[in-house]
Amino acid sequence: MFATPVVSVQSQVHHRLSQSTMADKAEIQEAIKTQGEVVRKLKAEKASKDQIDEEVAKLLALKAQLGGDEGKHTFVLKTAKGTRDYNPKQMAIREKVFNIIINCFKRHGAETIDTPVFELKETLTGKYGEDSKLIYDLKDQGGELLSLRYDLTVPFARYLAMNKITNIKRYHIAKVYRRDNPAMTRGRYREFYQCDFDIAGQYDAMIPDAECLKIVYEILSELDLGDFRIKVNDRRILDGMFAVCGVPDEKFRTICSTVDKLDKMAWEDVKNEMVNEKGLSEDAADQIGGYVSMQGGKDLAERLLQDPKLSKSKQACAGLTDMKQLFTYLELFQVTDKVVFDLSLARGLDYYTGVIYEAVLSQTVPASASTGAEQNGAAAGDEAGVSVGSVAGGGRYDGLVGMFDPKGRKVPCVGVSIGIERIFSIMEQKAEASSEKVRTTETQVLVASAQKNLLEERLKLTTELWNAGIKAEVLYKKNPKLLSQLQHCEETGIPLVAILGEQELKDGVVKLRNVASREEVDVPRLNLVDEIKKRTL
Amino acid sequence: MFATPVVSVQSQVHHRLSQSTMADKAEIQEAIKTQGEVVRKLKAEKASKDQIDEEVAKLLALKAQLGGDEGKHTFVLKTAKGTRDYNPKQMAIREKVFNIIINCFKRHGAETIDTPVFELKETLTGKYGEDSKLIYDLKDQGGELLSLRYDLTVPFARYLAMNKITNIKRYHIAKVYRRDNPAMTRGRYREFYQCDFDIAGQYDAMIPDAECLKIVYEILSELDLGDFRIKVNDRRILDGMFAVCGVPDEKFRTICSTVDKLDKMAWEDVKNEMVNEKGLSEDAADQIGGYVSMQGGKDLAERLLQDPKLSKSKQACAGLTDMKQLFTYLELFQVTDKVVFDLSLARGLDYYTGVIYEAVLSQTVPASASTGAEQNGAAAGDEAGVSVGSVAGGGRYDGLVGMFDPKGRKVPCVGVSIGIERIFSIMEQKAEASSEKVRTTETQVLVASAQKNLLEERLKLTTELWNAGIKAEVLYKKNPKLLSQLQHCEETGIPLVAILGEQELKDGVVKLRNVASREEVDVPRLNLVDEIKKRTL
Repeated sequence: MFATPVVSVQSQVHHRLSQSTMADKAEIQEAIKTQGEVVRKLKAEKASKDQIDEEVAKLLALKAQLGGDEGKHTFVLKTAKGTRDYNPKQMAIREKVFNIIINCFKRHGAETIDTPVFELKETLTGKYGEDSKLIYDLKDQGGELLSLRYDLTVPFARYLAMNKITNIKRYHIAKVYRRDNPAMTRGRYREFYQCDFDIAGQYDAMIPDAECLKIVYEILSELDLGDFRIKVNDRRILDGMFAVCGVPDEKFRTICSTVDKLDKMAWEDVKNEMVNEKGLSEDAADQIGGYVSMQGGKDLAERLLQDPKLSKSKQACAGLTDMKQLFTYLELFQVTDKVVFDLSLARGLDYYTGVIYEAVLSQTVPASASTGAEQNGAAAGDEAGVSVGSVAGGGRYDGLVGMFDPKGRKVPCVGVSIGIERIFSIMEQKAEASSEKVRTTETQVLVASAQKNLLEERLKLTTELWNAGIKAEVLYKKNPKLLSQLQHCEETGIPLVAILGEQELKDGVVKLRNVASREEVDVPRLNLVDEIKKRTL
Repeated sequence: MFATPVVSVQSQVHHRLSQSTMADKAEIQEAIKTQGEVVRKLKAEKASKDQIDEEVAKLLALKAQLGGDEGKHTFVLKTAKGTRDYNPKQMAIREKVFNIIINCFKRHGAETIDTPVFELKETLTGKYGEDSKLIYDLKDQGGELLSLRYDLTVPFARYLAMNKITNIKRYHIAKVYRRDNPAMTRGRYREFYQCDFDIAGQYDAMIPDAECLKIVYEILSELDLGDFRIKVNDRRILDGMFAVCGVPDEKFRTICSTVDKLDKMAWEDVKNEMVNEKGLSEDAADQIGGYVSMQGGKDLAERLLQDPKLSKSKQACAGLTDMKQLFTYLELFQVTDKVVFDLSLARGLDYYTGVIYEAVLSQTVPASASTGAEQNGAAAGDEAGVSVGSVAGGGRYDGLVGMFDPKGRKVPCVGVSIGIERIFSIMEQKAEASSEKVRTTETQVLVASAQKNLLEERLKLTTELWNAGIKAEVLYKKNPKLLSQLQHCEETGIPLVAILGEQELKDGVVKLRNVASREEVDVPRLNLVDEIKKRTL
């Protein structure tokens, strides 16, 4: 994303040295040696560029601490690995996307909450299965042991239990943190936004679940990202399927996470992992293979309820009956054209207990974006092009809140998370490709002058405009050239210029110029605010 | 804020134990003994309730790890110390406050950026003087050493240097982190929002500085928090004053931070700290005392330029000349009624190089809020009541970006940070005191029915409304009572109910009910959207 020049700053380094717990030069030199070894080893192993960069950065930091040659210490000017700054253009796009999403959440009557960026470490423990290793911990500096939130769902469940809330419809938009392998060109970061919408409460089956899918449908349609599909499945159907196919109980979870890879891997490879890595019998794997290739709608749910093998599982039947009901509501919500009941959808997280879903765009990935670290992952295409992967996902998790409640009281929940970073990436690419310029300010008018010594008059007029609620700018120069004032408007998209001169001041008027058309007209100063408002509706 | 029940969850603890690096029971028991000692010691020392709570929490967590008695392990259900959740009501207030602030920033032509929540540790090193000990570090889990951002100013400077930006007017609203002693009743947290507005670039003196003060003035006026004052001073005036009063060079910073306490401590105590703790001569302290009691406007700057002692300092003269200029612009901006040139204003941070300022409310603190940990700090009142402390602050920092630039190139900057958490606290208290109910959703209409078996019709109508952009809700029950549907409207402030019944369906109408007036009217279904829009403008 950004260049990472190597920088030398003496005071910086001096400070570090004096604070350092590794004040002993020998110790630092030893550390440098070790780091150097690591770098050589990585290079020998043809490790990723990222990894080498990271180790080199450590090496340079250590060298800086050593402070050998006077005043020429080095540190790396960059953001943390897997994170990025948002520049004003990106922020303008982000604001647009958030507005669409928040409007949708509000249209569905949602409130919003916020929780701290870190939780007690134990709050996150035992919620994410194998992914727990990706949690960022804070250093123990005395006091509580803390971790950065990994998603917004566990903090939500903690919030409900702590405040004894039994029903709420809320959205939460905030950043979450995962020490994952970043693939930034494809919108995968270590710090990224989640936009979550969840409905907690004991209600009649499948109504809130259907509303979550309606919301995904509305948001993806309004964002205008091209065609998409929403895959739906149910954990109970998956578990029932595993049972009737002969998967031992203790292997449900691990087989489930292998099935989850079907959107990125061919069936042959998935089967291979099941049999050779996870020790499943070939026969069981083949039976699973028969089911996970099935896709359909309400009809498929009805057919599977008659399936001699699957219908033996009570769990599967419960899931399939609910699936039928879900599709009835989805028809009323007018979204069935994009929703597919897909038995290969598994989703990684441990806490789902019922319906699960995932939305994927069927857009073709541009060449530049398909060469990231996930290249192999994206190899499994569908007919409409190469899938850019999941842009929304969620499901029902009826047990999570109970894990936090003192008496284990359950609060049934269903929710959806919008994969906003991928959406940003796509919107940014669209903005790059489009000829339309993205404005990063909303300024309506620049207060300018063609003559010298009018700074005070410019500030006075600007004050009048600000006080009347007009978005106005003035250049911070005593005597700016008119040309540079007009250029500022062209560059930033300001549509109007209010020009003051000796003559205008004498006449009690302001020359109002339309930047695009270059038309100018004298407006009585008293009418200026109204005239600007009228022209910038 | 919230209750912190002690919770028992077996699976939780089981997981912890299996992951624990302290798997050895003996080791844990030893740790519990140590923790117990700490608690006893704290109690003996009459430590703050917070500290004891924290240690007790650690003790319970350790006990839970030990897992002595089957299935009855305990953990504490709470947010991290010094942090809080925002409930929907607090979020509604927060949104209102942010809207006012963001509108002001946009009115002044600002763009916005965002930076990651953590920075490389070395990016923050050497920027915060004594306060560096309050920085949160992340645990070293391999990879880079990271710290949570302490403010938004240093990340901004890093951003400018990294992207070689030499001028920008930007705002940034985000959370920052300080391992400070929290005083939550007074709005002081370990995780809190900052709202920063900064102008970077080489411009004519004091114009951007004056705009920052104009912005503080506008925001505090619009938020309607009662009377306020904005104190202004200049680091160069302070340094010049220290020099002519005989403070040794190496003591400037430390004496400066003592002067900074004048808003919370009486002069006698400040002098005492200077002389007895910081080793300043009594004579020098008295000379400082003469200056720091001075307050005024442009006139004071003019008078001090004639002061035989102070005018010997070139630095002080430069600061005073700029102060005069600043007041000229402030007059044009119509804000001098609230701005005071106050020689006692010092501000803690190291990086300021010129003008500094701080806004304080003159509102009386309600009894409930004045009993926090800062009780002593707030003892120094002013005539209009007890000051609730700073609600905005900032200044000029011309050297900070250069600390990050490879070639030390400077980018002059001036900015202001709005102390949003204190403002939230006040707004919340106001909302509590007011009879007006805070709405947490924007729902315009609830789709209801008085009869049974109309769920599908309700969902169909709701879909029509959503698709037309109306904010609509429907209860997730197959056959809800009309009364409970109306109650939901009363509780959440939904103004309209669209009631469906067999007769209405037959007639092609919907009964539209005004919740407040209880008036009902039949509206043709085709006109419903327009009618709702008209009534909820």
